Amino acid sequence: MCLALPALAEEPPLLVSGMGSFHIGGRQAEVSGRPVREVQLAPGARPVRIDPNGTYRVDGMYVQYHHPATRRGRVPLMLWHGGGMTGVVWETTPDGREGWQTWFLRRGWSVYVSDAVERGRSGWAMFPDITPAEPIFLTMADPWERFRIGAGPGSWRSRSAIPGTQFPTDAYERFTAQLVPRWVVTDAAATDAYTQLLRQVGPAVVLTHAQSSLYALRVAKAEAERVRALVLLEPTAFGPMTPEELAPLRGMPVLVLYGDFIEQDPRWSAAHERGTQFVEALRAAGGQVEVVELPDRGIRGNSHLMMMDRNNGAVAEVVQGWLAARGLWE
Amino acid sequence: MCLALPALAEEPPLLVSGMGSFHIGGRQAEVSGRPVREVQLAPGARPVRIDPNGTYRVDGMYVQYHHPATRRGRVPLMLWHGGGMTGVVWETTPDGREGWQTWFLRRGWSVYVSDAVERGRSGWAMFPDITPAEPIFLTMADPWERFRIGAGPGSWRSRSAIPGTQFPTDAYERFTAQLVPRWVVTDAAATDAYTQLLRQVGPAVVLTHAQSSLYALRVAKAEAERVRALVLLEPTAFGPMTPEELAPLRGMPVLVLYGDFIEQDPRWSAAHERGTQFVEALRAAGGQVEVVELPDRGIRGNSHLMMMDRNNGAVAEVVQGWLAARGLWE
Repeated sequence: MCLALPALAEEPPLLVSGMGSFHIGGRQAEVSGRPVREVQLAPGARPVRIDPNGTYRVDGMYVQYHHPATRRGRVPLMLWHGGGMTGVVWETTPDGREGWQTWFLRRGWSVYVSDAVERGRSGWAMFPDITPAEPIFLTMADPWERFRIGAGPGSWRSRSAIPGTQFPTDAYERFTAQLVPRWVVTDAAATDAYTQLLRQVGPAVVLTHAQSSLYALRVAKAEAERVRALVLLEPTAFGPMTPEELAPLRGMPVLVLYGDFIEQDPRWSAAHERGTQFVEALRAAGGQVEVVELPDRGIRGNSHLMMMDRNNGAVAEVVQGWLAARGLWE
Repeated sequence: MCLALPALAEEPPLLVSGMGSFHIGGRQAEVSGRPVREVQLAPGARPVRIDPNGTYRVDGMYVQYHHPATRRGRVPLMLWHGGGMTGVVWETTPDGREGWQTWFLRRGWSVYVSDAVERGRSGWAMFPDITPAEPIFLTMADPWERFRIGAGPGSWRSRSAIPGTQFPTDAYERFTAQLVPRWVVTDAAATDAYTQLLRQVGPAVVLTHAQSSLYALRVAKAEAERVRALVLLEPTAFGPMTPEELAPLRGMPVLVLYGDFIEQDPRWSAAHERGTQFVEALRAAGGQVEVVELPDRGIRGNSHLMMMDRNNGAVAEVVQGWLAARGLWE
């Protein structure tokens, strides 16, 4: 079978005419019972008495936005990263190619990139005093083996990648620099901040990756009129997915994307199965869901990190085409 | 004495034609001896075996850059935040006004904003295994009392601000959302990452805030040909400051800025005194240093956070004028 090369199209120019950032959501939390410390904050400075007891501002979420000079997206496009990562996942790829943030900006979308609660520029709180659990740190081996870059457990030791992978494996170490610690007890706080974001900025298109599907579905159920469409990249969490629970979503188009090599990995097969249950339940509730298995479209080799794979532009085109077909871009 | 109002000039338009980000620097670090955990990464997902032992990527630094459509800065402008904060300090102010990142972008500077090692999007490492110390968290009271917003110790309890403060106190709580934990044992790693940044992107103008003066001075000593000018906002750390140590800086113009109310606060008087020693030593070494006490220029009320005070544009104008006068902008 012969694959015709795509016509070389010129990338639309990047022209941003507005940008900024803010923190949204969060709360105050008290700490007591910890000992006072004397700390020298800089060499040569007077020691400062650091009393860790007091009131902290926690659970806020950082959001950065860019507006294109010529707006063609009918509503803003929000990019919500997944577990262990930050909004950086949408930015320049580890091997220096364009990421989805600017790919969509070029095409006229206002793009909002967030760092979920306790990730990246959202900061993080004292544990276990405020966040009642230990954080999880990802080793360099973990995403290699778990994100379908390497061929599963043990593949890091030999640095063996799945044949045909689109991940820029030469830049894998640089990729791991963007990993951040995470907690698994902060879902409610993350959902709350995202809900406030939709109330302030919406209606919008919400595009998620892995874990953040959970937040998007919760927010979509509560604020359906503010979610114009949902794009779920390899969603891994859905919350309750009976047709009754999903009924509020029936008015918004939903796209679910999967990459390659899913069936080779039991964890991803299981996640894909849960995704299928979600899709069926949403359809039973009257929702409109499209599922795209990228290999079925001739787009092969995608890891879990399709937004930074070497063919990330082709994957973005699928999303863009779907959004345009739904009247969300002109 | 009558102060003439400045002529109302129209803000130059913001037009960005290039942007991206990367992580730079860092290393691999090993952890061993910790117990394995079983963790459910998302509701309904198969538990994942999280083995915290292994190799981690740590000490990298996140950098985001924007290029203006019309470049007038002769070299890039790097903005290096201070302790307890991230690159967000340069972005939109807590009360929604323009920050320095876009202020300088409008005027034709390529602006590079970083999150120093272990801050914000640079992630952070397991402690004490990799970072051999406890982190420091800032209470809501701390910057209010320490950054010359409130009138010193005890001023948070009564929420009393220094009369005439330019800090947007109504937005103080929102400001505290951007605070992040910090360590005091990561100076070498931070310096190393900044050094690599200058090697990759320089020559550049380096503009620092508080603690990051230490990093800039170290990098400037080692890579003097890559630092075209230094702007130090209320520097708090200098490292060794004999004329011999500072001799490598003699070829680069240096500007030191101080805000208001310095003499009212013993900590800031002491920091100002250290700054004076630095200036004298640099001059003795043959360097060119200008010190601007903003109140002497009729710019009053500035806190330690002059980049987000209500008159942050007037303060930025001082920096811009100084850079232009040194032939770094046309």
